[in-house]
Amino acid sequence: MDAITSAAGSLDTAIRDMQAALGAENVLLDGAGMADHGDPFAPPGDWYRPGAVLMPGSVEEVQGVLRIANQHGTPVWTSSQGRNKGYGGGAPRVPGTFTMSLRRMNRVLEVDEANCMALVEPGVRFFDLYDHLRATGSKLWMSVPDLGAGSVIGNALEHGVGYTPIGDHFGQHCGMEVVLPDGDILRTGMGGMGNPHNWLVYPHSAGPSWDGMFTQSNFGIVTKMGVALMNPPEVYAPGWFTLDSEEHFSTFLEVLRPLMIDGTISNQPMIINAVCAASAFWGREEWYTGDDPIPEAVIDRIAQTPGFGRWVMRFAVQGDAPVVRHNRAKIEAAFATIPGGSVSFEEFDGHNLPEFENPHHRVQAGIPSMALDRMTRWYGGEDGGHIGFSCAMPIAGKDGTAIRDLCARVLNERGLDYASAIIVGRRSMIHVALVVFDTTNGPQARAAYAAVKAMLEPAAKLGYGEYRSHIDFMDEVASLYDFNNNAQRRFAERIKDCLDPTGILSPGKQGIWPATFRENP
Amino acid sequence: MDAITSAAGSLDTAIRDMQAALGAENVLLDGAGMADHGDPFAPPGDWYRPGAVLMPGSVEEVQGVLRIANQHGTPVWTSSQGRNKGYGGGAPRVPGTFTMSLRRMNRVLEVDEANCMALVEPGVRFFDLYDHLRATGSKLWMSVPDLGAGSVIGNALEHGVGYTPIGDHFGQHCGMEVVLPDGDILRTGMGGMGNPHNWLVYPHSAGPSWDGMFTQSNFGIVTKMGVALMNPPEVYAPGWFTLDSEEHFSTFLEVLRPLMIDGTISNQPMIINAVCAASAFWGREEWYTGDDPIPEAVIDRIAQTPGFGRWVMRFAVQGDAPVVRHNRAKIEAAFATIPGGSVSFEEFDGHNLPEFENPHHRVQAGIPSMALDRMTRWYGGEDGGHIGFSCAMPIAGKDGTAIRDLCARVLNERGLDYASAIIVGRRSMIHVALVVFDTTNGPQARAAYAAVKAMLEPAAKLGYGEYRSHIDFMDEVASLYDFNNNAQRRFAERIKDCLDPTGILSPGKQGIWPATFRENP
Repeated sequence: MDAITSAAGSLDTAIRDMQAALGAENVLLDGAGMADHGDPFAPPGDWYRPGAVLMPGSVEEVQGVLRIANQHGTPVWTSSQGRNKGYGGGAPRVPGTFTMSLRRMNRVLEVDEANCMALVEPGVRFFDLYDHLRATGSKLWMSVPDLGAGSVIGNALEHGVGYTPIGDHFGQHCGMEVVLPDGDILRTGMGGMGNPHNWLVYPHSAGPSWDGMFTQSNFGIVTKMGVALMNPPEVYAPGWFTLDSEEHFSTFLEVLRPLMIDGTISNQPMIINAVCAASAFWGREEWYTGDDPIPEAVIDRIAQTPGFGRWVMRFAVQGDAPVVRHNRAKIEAAFATIPGGSVSFEEFDGHNLPEFENPHHRVQAGIPSMALDRMTRWYGGEDGGHIGFSCAMPIAGKDGTAIRDLCARVLNERGLDYASAIIVGRRSMIHVALVVFDTTNGPQARAAYAAVKAMLEPAAKLGYGEYRSHIDFMDEVASLYDFNNNAQRRFAERIKDCLDPTGILSPGKQGIWPATFRENP
Repeated sequence: MDAITSAAGSLDTAIRDMQAALGAENVLLDGAGMADHGDPFAPPGDWYRPGAVLMPGSVEEVQGVLRIANQHGTPVWTSSQGRNKGYGGGAPRVPGTFTMSLRRMNRVLEVDEANCMALVEPGVRFFDLYDHLRATGSKLWMSVPDLGAGSVIGNALEHGVGYTPIGDHFGQHCGMEVVLPDGDILRTGMGGMGNPHNWLVYPHSAGPSWDGMFTQSNFGIVTKMGVALMNPPEVYAPGWFTLDSEEHFSTFLEVLRPLMIDGTISNQPMIINAVCAASAFWGREEWYTGDDPIPEAVIDRIAQTPGFGRWVMRFAVQGDAPVVRHNRAKIEAAFATIPGGSVSFEEFDGHNLPEFENPHHRVQAGIPSMALDRMTRWYGGEDGGHIGFSCAMPIAGKDGTAIRDLCARVLNERGLDYASAIIVGRRSMIHVALVVFDTTNGPQARAAYAAVKAMLEPAAKLGYGEYRSHIDFMDEVASLYDFNNNAQRRFAERIKDCLDPTGILSPGKQGIWPATFRENP
């Protein structure tokens, strides 16, 4: 946590106005009430705590919060659900400031069955949308990330992904309503029409397409968004590929790439290493109790667990039966060329899914789950946590081995295990080092943060930028986007100063600071 | 053309500086030189003519042009190739001002075979990229619109489409380099890294995604862009569906929608009516010589041409043989339910395409063509032209019939024929009324413009916004995006004033005027 001091002292009069605007019950001031709105994995100590949590219930109340914040010059950090786990949750970059949670704005406003789209508010969790679809008799599938308690909108805005064919959540959205820092309301795409007949089906309007600038930014608060759904596939075939050694990891990625680019694999696979795979089932103490990094020999033992391997990939083919049959065979033939590799499939009727016990089967069918939350308990049991070091790169052996070796080395040097989850898209993959630690163990937590910071620059030199980052190192990440004297950050600052001259909205988000903070840090 | 007066008088001193910066040979001043940089279908009279055409050859020269323009306060309208036919070509919204054409910046900078991507400059035409791929021995397919002489970048920036599975050109792009109005250079996505290893594979960075705001706007000049390519499909199966009456047009669209949403049809189909189909082969005089709108009985005669119908859709299935076989059968079964409908396919080896004579076969295989240019010669032979009235709407019978009936009525009332081309995407379709006219016939040209203007507001009342518009009615189109007191335009103006305070870049583009023009119209 850097030198920006707490702004809590300036909140007092603003809090009274916020209470008047929202009702006192919607301004959380006590530690217990605020606890669920900070960083879920905060290390011991005074760590990016909110000064007060604001809980508006409507667009008008969001506008009210911004009006008061502008009057008092008090920053408001916003989140939809605040479940950006591994990246700071709902905690503000500037400790002691207001945070605004949109959890009360949780309506599914529309489900367009014919066009397979929904219009939701930011407080709608994946669980909520799923329950709404089932409760209303809809057969449509959705896309969910590994943990279902997050916001559908929040996840898309952070460039999060899910695991059905509509899993590129930002790429698949259509239309946004945004409250700007001055309270004005912008609707993007065809929402710009007074009669927004096409808001959920056509993503542009006549003029600029604004949506992207409201992702990973602090230029506005997204209060509605169109979300893609899909008809159930005839066949749902989750697959499992295991690789028994590190030696052919590179070959594996080379074989995988064309299957992704041509859509043979219809979802976004997730590749995890043995330590990460084990963390879904056990605490570390089941395998190793030393303070040093888990030894190779132990990892090899973990890898021998049935269904594991040094690396294992979950993926799926969803579609009509003959298409799934063909794509399965194509995948099997391709993977058969990888020494030490083994692939298997299961098949289910997409229209009549069983009750899955396997959480991987659930998420790849768009069914929310919280089962994989236990991956954070590798160290420290219930007190376990993680921060993500999350790089984008091509689906290529050279890149996969380079980032693997970098992360393993830096983490091991600091006594930490290397747990890796690689999420694979059409032409790129995100390598997430789940840097796990015991949140009650101060030195280990500090080592985890130090390890991430130590990996940022070497990764950048290899050409890998973070796709998302914890609030604690957003500044460092932004600095490493250094083309043309940090053109992206300089551009973002110009837009920030234009749209938010008093600098009240989520200052510091993704390293974008308003002029008020840049001039008086 | 509205009351904004020509700014040509103020160009003189700026022209000298431009000549010094670019070389006199790259500043076109004579009518012959400029003729190819205006509106290709300009009606008789003084019509949105450039004052001078600037032809920079590099990013540095683009920066030089902007520096001079800012010094003199002289606007510069930019285009990549200026082939935005039907929407004004390369002509400036403010007559008599500089236009800047990027035709000389025509290098294919990179082809990434492994990731099926290319990095191109704005002067690269679809023909150029195709020729480059073939000349370098690449087997990759690309996506092309109906006319291959346009800019790959320019088309994507205007939300244009092509007809292979990668035909959503903006949606499929990855990474941009943008010269801002003050000459600063921004690279979007992973281009923000000094070592842009992932520029062409991962579309975001850590922070806001800017790309969309540089489409259909006047905030920057895109000087490089990543373009999606694809491996050749095993089978290329172009299909043809004809419908023999207007009666079941609605049913047809209802049957089509789910085939698009689930990807059974893998490209973007184009549906044209009988008049539009005829215009690809003949001038109007072959069918009718009256001054009144072409009678229904004549349209019925045209519809009886083999391969025609009242409506005909070209589309394609591209993919592995078993997948194509399955999807063909699914499409045939679905279309068999449409009374008066008839569907047929051809099949080709995607790796060894024949020399196609049929231009539709070419464009759906990503091979550039100019054959369909003759559609503009319905009236007036070589002097024929068209302007597009181009609405976005759901793929639905109710909407398709409503826009058909509106366009036919308004055009016929003004003595014009109704020629329609509907381009179908995943969840939406763009209905383009190709408002065709003889460019040498002043009254007919004025009737064409008046007809479009008469359709804008009724279409908006039905909920349909233009997706693109001719420079002559960009202001009206922007006005009809009227949610919250034209929030989109007001927002665009704020960004415009922030990024381009002297208002030099493409003023009036998409109805976005800089402060200098809003205050002194």
